[in-house]
Amino acid sequence: MLIAGALVSGTGTEIRGYDPATGQTLEPGYRYGDDTHVAAACAAAAEAFAAYRATTAEQRARFLESIAANLEAIAETVVARAHAETGLPEARLTGEVGRTTGQLRLFAAVLREGSWTGARIDPALPDRTPLPRPDIRQRAVPLGPVAVFGASNFPLAFSVAGGDTASALAAGCPVVVKAHDAHPGTSELVARAIADAVTAEGLPPGTFSMLFGSGPGLGTALVTDPRIAAVGFTGSRSGGLALVAAAATRPEPIPVYAEMSSINPVFLLDAALASRGADLGRAFVGSLTMGSGQFCTNPGLIIAVDGPGLDAFLASAREALGAAAATPMLTPTIAESYAAGVTALSERAELVVRGLAGNATACQAALFTTDASTFATSEVLQAEVFGSSSLVVRCADVDEMSRVAAGLEGQLTATVHADEADHDAARQLLPTLETKAGRILFNGWPTGVEVGHAMVHGGPFPATSDSRTTSVGGRAIERFLRPVAYQDVPTSLLPSAIADGNPDGIWRRVDGELTRD
Amino acid sequence: MLIAGALVSGTGTEIRGYDPATGQTLEPGYRYGDDTHVAAACAAAAEAFAAYRATTAEQRARFLESIAANLEAIAETVVARAHAETGLPEARLTGEVGRTTGQLRLFAAVLREGSWTGARIDPALPDRTPLPRPDIRQRAVPLGPVAVFGASNFPLAFSVAGGDTASALAAGCPVVVKAHDAHPGTSELVARAIADAVTAEGLPPGTFSMLFGSGPGLGTALVTDPRIAAVGFTGSRSGGLALVAAAATRPEPIPVYAEMSSINPVFLLDAALASRGADLGRAFVGSLTMGSGQFCTNPGLIIAVDGPGLDAFLASAREALGAAAATPMLTPTIAESYAAGVTALSERAELVVRGLAGNATACQAALFTTDASTFATSEVLQAEVFGSSSLVVRCADVDEMSRVAAGLEGQLTATVHADEADHDAARQLLPTLETKAGRILFNGWPTGVEVGHAMVHGGPFPATSDSRTTSVGGRAIERFLRPVAYQDVPTSLLPSAIADGNPDGIWRRVDGELTRD
Repeated sequence: MLIAGALVSGTGTEIRGYDPATGQTLEPGYRYGDDTHVAAACAAAAEAFAAYRATTAEQRARFLESIAANLEAIAETVVARAHAETGLPEARLTGEVGRTTGQLRLFAAVLREGSWTGARIDPALPDRTPLPRPDIRQRAVPLGPVAVFGASNFPLAFSVAGGDTASALAAGCPVVVKAHDAHPGTSELVARAIADAVTAEGLPPGTFSMLFGSGPGLGTALVTDPRIAAVGFTGSRSGGLALVAAAATRPEPIPVYAEMSSINPVFLLDAALASRGADLGRAFVGSLTMGSGQFCTNPGLIIAVDGPGLDAFLASAREALGAAAATPMLTPTIAESYAAGVTALSERAELVVRGLAGNATACQAALFTTDASTFATSEVLQAEVFGSSSLVVRCADVDEMSRVAAGLEGQLTATVHADEADHDAARQLLPTLETKAGRILFNGWPTGVEVGHAMVHGGPFPATSDSRTTSVGGRAIERFLRPVAYQDVPTSLLPSAIADGNPDGIWRRVDGELTRD
Repeated sequence: MLIAGALVSGTGTEIRGYDPATGQTLEPGYRYGDDTHVAAACAAAAEAFAAYRATTAEQRARFLESIAANLEAIAETVVARAHAETGLPEARLTGEVGRTTGQLRLFAAVLREGSWTGARIDPALPDRTPLPRPDIRQRAVPLGPVAVFGASNFPLAFSVAGGDTASALAAGCPVVVKAHDAHPGTSELVARAIADAVTAEGLPPGTFSMLFGSGPGLGTALVTDPRIAAVGFTGSRSGGLALVAAAATRPEPIPVYAEMSSINPVFLLDAALASRGADLGRAFVGSLTMGSGQFCTNPGLIIAVDGPGLDAFLASAREALGAAAATPMLTPTIAESYAAGVTALSERAELVVRGLAGNATACQAALFTTDASTFATSEVLQAEVFGSSSLVVRCADVDEMSRVAAGLEGQLTATVHADEADHDAARQLLPTLETKAGRILFNGWPTGVEVGHAMVHGGPFPATSDSRTTSVGGRAIERFLRPVAYQDVPTSLLPSAIADGNPDGIWRRVDGELTRD
């Protein structure tokens, strides 16, 4: 583990990296920490907070860029280790290094642009009657130390130096990461890269720590530590809900941003299905089997009206999926959960096809169908199965498709395949999808989450525990900020974001109007 | 009660307005509703949501203005009834009508300005390698029906048509209000004004309902109704925490914005105290006794270094407060709680002076002192006493003042009185105050919350249950919105806020840069 710049060994359970491709465990062993390590990391974070929150946006931007540069310098080593620990292809992992450094640099750009400060100025109106108006200014301040839980499926982009860490550090919050057991060696490499940047940029060592431990043990201790001010999590519904529940037992509640569970419905509208049903079936299988289906945005549900178009879709999907190789899953536990999920589906839905079989930890893809009324009455059919499994819901007509949409839980994404002739039907469907999903996409597939200013990776419960936010993209920084108003604060004491003369040169809202003056 | 445009009588406990000035109950009686009324109001709100969320910003702005105009048309009647029900002076209530209509019009202006949509566009980059970038756009959508709990102390501005209602309606969320028992007649008048505006603007009747009922009974039923998507509350810590706990038992958690408890520390720095201690003492008493101290921002705590300046402050405060008349409190319950709070303080702190005595429901002001070490070890001394009671903490030096600041719970406000010579000390104190309070003000008093774009009426727990938000000012609308991303959505299906050509003419973030193009 790495606590405030110091390498520390735990005394608990020993974990090792596991190569799902070969079934071999990897050296070295890492030991779980305990409550004393949580306390040490949180104390260091709380101590660091005073100095770290006082850094300028430019200083934090350079820090994030320094982390990115350090990761690039060890990219080959990191990719090799992550490949061994996850079984994910090296090309994918090389791309994920780029995604991770890209995220760090996106937040550097967000910091420099300055709108993250939420700067607002309502100038004094000394002559207003019946009462003069005071000078009131507003800016954002960081919440405090943030606990980040690394995800299994993105060993880089949603893990130690992933989006939660990058956005919390950008906001001015020290970070304590609980690394995921599935890639301890990768986590160590990345943690060192961050700690080196902390040192190089002259920041307090407690700005960053990384721990190993169990979710119910060390994880709960971390979330309930009074010095932790917010939590970022990407993982399972049960894991996320456990953290939400732990946070709710605190004397002082804190925000928990848990990105949990989504089956990502895909609506195939009639004209699109009629004109390109077979093509859609093949493309669907490509999205479904990518990365052994281990994506939060995996297309786990297809909704369409029965007919020749859907038959063509199913025929080509059956052919493509039947030939799909079994690819390694991240961990034996994930592979077991996947197999159990497929078994549960097979007891309630009709099997279309399985992919090719592989070894015990490989993902054998699966596709099922059911009808709308069976789907509506079964919680099992609506539950996420993490892996390359999907369910086609056959509907009698467009109205039944709408009812299926209205009955869905909250989702990260909702996809519509629509030709020009489908636009009226799509227009009917859109308002429902807006209330159900964080991202609506047309004529594509939900896997692949673009990192940019406009992205929303979030959505209504249970997709996340807080639908008001996104865990990917520029707005993720807002999760770790709160506004403070400054009333008649003397000019010389004002923070630069809201100082007279706009020394930071940023966009500010003056009397309600945006201006750079 | 008023459910989706229809007047409905409950069958439960009968409540009546109570005139705290005369001790008389007022006609007519109002009866508590039950779970069936909650269900009816929530069903109507859920049904209305589909149509109401589809209204344009301009339509909702006109609706808010229509409510404001209706309130102005009945202002005399409302003020007279509110005066009878609360004992608050008519001038104050006339001002509160203006504040309420001003809030409604502020949100109309916010809607028209358009930045509330959070419009962002990352245009497609079809030639990007290795993968093309899709077109991604983002805008805000309303959460769904909102439950609003009216406050006792602002029968208009934080009640039926108050800030929570105005901001939720602005966001596109139907509202179900639980009116406060302290002013049922006022609530009826205001509810009718809103319902008339709903009708006049052709909106679905379920857009607004108002219920009477107990907090633990009807209030809990409202918060746990699955159709409610968010809660706004202004009131006591126990009341707010009960709603937070009720919301946490829901299968689907929802945001609860509870503005609860604050003692609003005031730091008197040395030079200011030396140069104007006596003046500060008099001004303090003016803020403390206003409205019988029944403000969330009442200055309940004074922190200063012992010495001649503080002696002068205490002497003038003693004189002014000793002559302060006992003024009516809103309800007998509030008066009883106030008396109990003062008794608890008197057992642990040294009495400086009481104000003049009055009848049983009048507020007899009280001022106490203690030292920093006694204060640090007593939860009672840090608890809010709702009314004109305050406590002066005598410190040995500036470092002890800082330690008192660091030990405080979260607050709505923190005030600093500082002369030029105090600025270094103030600079030391500011970072701590930023972590403790939602609003920091200099050389003024915290009572009086300006309604504007830059105001923050919020703060860390227990001041509120969600420090990331404000319940007063333009940003209050954000509490009832969530972002949705639109990826490759056909041009003709895009909402106007993020449509090509910027038809709404609003500020949008394109590739991360603000523009009106």
